[in-house]
Amino acid sequence: MTFPHPHRLEIIAFLKQLRFDIIAAFERLEEGAMFEKKTWNYHGEGGGEMAVLRGNHFEKAAVNWSGVGGDKFPMADGQGPFFATGISLITHMANPHAPTVHMNIRFIETSKGFWFGGGYDLTPMGFPYDEDTTHFHHIAKDTLDPFDRHLYEKFSQNAREYFYIPHRKKERGVGGIFFDHFNTGDFTSDLNLWKSVGNSFLNTILPIYDRRIHQDFSVSDREKQLHLRAHYAEFNLVYDRGTKFGFQSGGNPEAILCSMPPLAKW
Amino acid sequence: MTFPHPHRLEIIAFLKQLRFDIIAAFERLEEGAMFEKKTWNYHGEGGGEMAVLRGNHFEKAAVNWSGVGGDKFPMADGQGPFFATGISLITHMANPHAPTVHMNIRFIETSKGFWFGGGYDLTPMGFPYDEDTTHFHHIAKDTLDPFDRHLYEKFSQNAREYFYIPHRKKERGVGGIFFDHFNTGDFTSDLNLWKSVGNSFLNTILPIYDRRIHQDFSVSDREKQLHLRAHYAEFNLVYDRGTKFGFQSGGNPEAILCSMPPLAKW
Repeated sequence: MTFPHPHRLEIIAFLKQLRFDIIAAFERLEEGAMFEKKTWNYHGEGGGEMAVLRGNHFEKAAVNWSGVGGDKFPMADGQGPFFATGISLITHMANPHAPTVHMNIRFIETSKGFWFGGGYDLTPMGFPYDEDTTHFHHIAKDTLDPFDRHLYEKFSQNAREYFYIPHRKKERGVGGIFFDHFNTGDFTSDLNLWKSVGNSFLNTILPIYDRRIHQDFSVSDREKQLHLRAHYAEFNLVYDRGTKFGFQSGGNPEAILCSMPPLAKW
Repeated sequence: MTFPHPHRLEIIAFLKQLRFDIIAAFERLEEGAMFEKKTWNYHGEGGGEMAVLRGNHFEKAAVNWSGVGGDKFPMADGQGPFFATGISLITHMANPHAPTVHMNIRFIETSKGFWFGGGYDLTPMGFPYDEDTTHFHHIAKDTLDPFDRHLYEKFSQNAREYFYIPHRKKERGVGGIFFDHFNTGDFTSDLNLWKSVGNSFLNTILPIYDRRIHQDFSVSDREKQLHLRAHYAEFNLVYDRGTKFGFQSGGNPEAILCSMPPLAKW
């Protein structure tokens, strides 16, 4: 294995551009409020930039980039030096009829190998709309089909398993796609697939937000939303691998916990 | 080992009486609102009763009793049948100047042995008062000293270690006492110590609430409180042994998550 990977810089450049585009799109919806940005340094090499928006429609959105490396891969022994870079995104909408969306794409290298990971999933906060769920999954399938006709089935099954809350005995939302340790041996194709997932993200969510963010809602709709946000918080803190990786690798807690809801009720 | 322990019923009776007294004392402070009670059954034998108060001073308080048993102790292999009974208590106060308090006492039996555990700890939500902290620890020390002059030092050190939030690099509050696997070989003395801890609880907290629940507070005091409650939620979901035991033993999630704050901000 070549370490660093010869395409590392290209991959980082892609992530930064995608993040720029997403931030611009969210700020257009928000009409006024802007993302606040904050960089942080990793105790090994590298660091990241958090960007958090607190606005009228996006009660809280975070679109973070990080690129961190070190001598010892924190998630498995004996893999020597590592480098991990990715975007992690979450929204918590003011309107209970507008679902939370989560997206993450990442590229990880160790001295033993490299792989891609990522996905996106949708979590209605009390008000699921078939129309939205269908659209979201449709874009995901359209994105994956050109690469391999079986991927959507596999990756959406991954999401069903990964985004499951055992103590609540339910999925956290209406699913999406999730993949990890992805490396078919065809680097160019894997990279293109991964970029396509990232590039398709705005198409999954913007039409849904256009429909939902101006919808009327009641005080009891808001109550329902805040209780469901609590389940989301439970998933992130009890089960999520990204949170574990973050804590174990001594990442910035503020960046790791960016995904937590702005307000939640138990 | 005799299984069940010959004093099991006496222990359960003590827990139920103590819980009754605490509930009565909290309802006196609240002047109006009452605890709502709900029983649940464990998939093995036994079950529990939750009692949750949502009032003007106690934004949320839970005082739960449980007594559950089964063929296989969930926390360690090869210990055969087990029985665990205890009270678990938490308060989240409306007034940011009134601290959260947590108390738990428990008695656990397996076929290999039995032990006592418990303690209480105080968590100011942004507004620590030396006077309150001193009083709280003073009662704890006074309770333990008659049994063994070294216990307070030991148990308060346990609390400092146990109620630590690694990713926040801080203790969750101003401490208290914590003990587990307590069995000196002198059953009568151990039982009395454990009962004394339980019986001293109301003396630790009522004088503090008398001073704090009518204090003035501002909108920004409330903001501060809600952000500190988020750290409390993180501790409970990421590190707390009781939550882990509950999830692993297939306990009632509603009862396990009773300790979560009524409202928290990230």
